[in-house]
Amino acid sequence: MKNLLTRRTIRQYADRDVSEALLNRLFAEASRTQTMGNLQLYSVIVTRSADMKQRLAPAHFNQPMVTQAPVVLTVCADFNRTSQWARHRQAEPGYDNFLSFINAATDALLFAQTLCCLMDEEGLGYCYLGTTVYQPQQIIDILQLPRLVMPVATLTVGWPAEEPPLSDRLPVGSFVHSETYRDYTADTIDAFYTAKEQLEENRHFVEINHKASLAQVFTDIRYTRRDNEAMSATLLDTLKRQGFL
Amino acid sequence: MKNLLTRRTIRQYADRDVSEALLNRLFAEASRTQTMGNLQLYSVIVTRSADMKQRLAPAHFNQPMVTQAPVVLTVCADFNRTSQWARHRQAEPGYDNFLSFINAATDALLFAQTLCCLMDEEGLGYCYLGTTVYQPQQIIDILQLPRLVMPVATLTVGWPAEEPPLSDRLPVGSFVHSETYRDYTADTIDAFYTAKEQLEENRHFVEINHKASLAQVFTDIRYTRRDNEAMSATLLDTLKRQGFL
Repeated sequence: MKNLLTRRTIRQYADRDVSEALLNRLFAEASRTQTMGNLQLYSVIVTRSADMKQRLAPAHFNQPMVTQAPVVLTVCADFNRTSQWARHRQAEPGYDNFLSFINAATDALLFAQTLCCLMDEEGLGYCYLGTTVYQPQQIIDILQLPRLVMPVATLTVGWPAEEPPLSDRLPVGSFVHSETYRDYTADTIDAFYTAKEQLEENRHFVEINHKASLAQVFTDIRYTRRDNEAMSATLLDTLKRQGFL
Repeated sequence: MKNLLTRRTIRQYADRDVSEALLNRLFAEASRTQTMGNLQLYSVIVTRSADMKQRLAPAHFNQPMVTQAPVVLTVCADFNRTSQWARHRQAEPGYDNFLSFINAATDALLFAQTLCCLMDEEGLGYCYLGTTVYQPQQIIDILQLPRLVMPVATLTVGWPAEEPPLSDRLPVGSFVHSETYRDYTADTIDAFYTAKEQLEENRHFVEINHKASLAQVFTDIRYTRRDNEAMSATLLDTLKRQGFL
């Protein structure tokens, strides 16, 4: 994958269309990804209409990419299609449960990531929106997703109109374990995180947020216990409504 | 990705090592994948020891690839490392909840899939084991995964010693929806599934299982309601023990 080492998230897009033919070719290629029993437990909703983007934006905290990208893709865990197939073939599906959600979400996320790799190769820019699982009911209503379909990833897609700097990564040794998991100590945490903490942009980030450490910016501002617990309850509730719990 | 269109799952491996240097290079490249807040909420456990493979095998229903592959990779959703980092930096982590599991599982699965794409390019063969979430407690015990670490994907990896036929895929139109989800009808199910059902291998599969349709092989034998419900309960229970519920 020629562009992987220079991969960056792209949030600004050129005023140029992403053709349906190109997208369909990438979808077909991405569908070579392995799935559970080769059932392909996913769906993609393609949003091109300005009105639909406007309606989706609040579910993604009004991040400007949603209305500015030529295309927004919502990738869904989908056990509806397979269940419909079964019912039309005198088979009784049993996929309204949590394991089936995890299986379908896995298929959907692996498909989405192959698509990302293909878009990198093609020179397309994209931004992966983790917000998809924060207020999923809004997305479900807008895209009219039936029972046993759950949005798990959103990609805003277009031709890049920016070239942001590469973001940092932890060293390989920080996340690879040999034979068994070896837990972290004060020393290994220092060894793995100090370089990240000393980056100019991260020191600046700590300063403007009036925090004592980079970790505090994450725990106290970006991803707080209170938000996580509230959104966990919402997510479980939505999974129940969609028939997966 | 030069090999994506000819990608197949590889279950038989040559008697040739996969070097640590090669794996570490692929891990570093795969870590370019986007993650939540660039926190890289995943870990990989590398299994090379014959004894450890033997112990892991039952958790994967003794599929022979687990003991025969030179390397087995268990990819985990990991909020332990980030939480440890926070605690060593006077920050109070709040990631012992369901949303945090979904966020970390997403990071782990996207990382795993980029790794798969890189292995395809490199000519390595792999088999993705969905069984990882079926009996996760066994894997947790064997790999000594602490609280807030949960296995979500297993890859058996080696140099290919077989070239199986390409498996079929549904047409793009079956999983892509424009603007809103349009539900399936008897006619669209026929249009999307008939080719799959008529494949020689699938007709044979129906016959040897004494079933009336391919869908029945899935609902009555491969992925039954009874198994799904039992394993859903186990999975939720394990998530609770690992601190994510």
